[in-house]
Amino acid sequence: MSQETAVLFANEAFYLAFSGADIDAMADLWAERTAVSCIHPGWSPLFGRVEVLDSWHDILSAAETPEIVCSHARAMITGDVAYVVCYENFERGALVATNIFAREAGRWRMVHHQAAPAPPPEAPEIPDHTPTTLQ
Amino acid sequence: MSQETAVLFANEAFYLAFSGADIDAMADLWAERTAVSCIHPGWSPLFGRVEVLDSWHDILSAAETPEIVCSHARAMITGDVAYVVCYENFERGALVATNIFAREAGRWRMVHHQAAPAPPPEAPEIPDHTPTTLQ
Repeated sequence: MSQETAVLFANEAFYLAFSGADIDAMADLWAERTAVSCIHPGWSPLFGRVEVLDSWHDILSAAETPEIVCSHARAMITGDVAYVVCYENFERGALVATNIFAREAGRWRMVHHQAAPAPPPEAPEIPDHTPTTLQ
Repeated sequence: MSQETAVLFANEAFYLAFSGADIDAMADLWAERTAVSCIHPGWSPLFGRVEVLDSWHDILSAAETPEIVCSHARAMITGDVAYVVCYENFERGALVATNIFAREAGRWRMVHHQAAPAPPPEAPEIPDHTPTTLQ
């Protein structure tokens, strides 16, 4: 599996945990050795694993977790750090996200997330940027 | 100068170029060897140096470039990649930004910027996170 594919899988895992309201998976995919931070749409930034995971606990424990589908993900990798720019598609509109990952013991783990409102994607999904198969 | 200070100086240079509508400085501070991307508030993401710098050219050439002051900047560094989370304070409100930098030939250069609306910062500026002196 190429590193780009590995990063995009890590990104996809984040959205699977989100859409599945899987708090354990969400906790597991955030970095443990690297400082973490998170900027939810319209929120002040959160810093540190406790504060960030508490926010996800609250969001994923809500009665109505919104359906979310990631698309148009593009990964940029420099050494042991990578970031992904992607759309987050909800029923009521789209957000665009910056997700930063660090490689810890060979595994890409999330260190930062920012999502904010954006126009819906103009172009259809680009298959090359979707990790559909292991290489 | 510590790497954290160097990253925060690079971040400050971005806001000086922005507030000074200095297109040359803005072009100079964006990376040349690393892929770049940019998500302006409410925009679709932009990819590549030409597209990103064209957007800054349009923004900085506008008749009324808004006054902007960066505050509460915090830098996280892993090897040759760093990111800064900070507030962008305008007269009419605040944005919060994720700015990613890569070290090219010893110099921290911007590779990604996302800014989006946020509540104004609650706490006053933390002096430790402001690069006021060279070390």
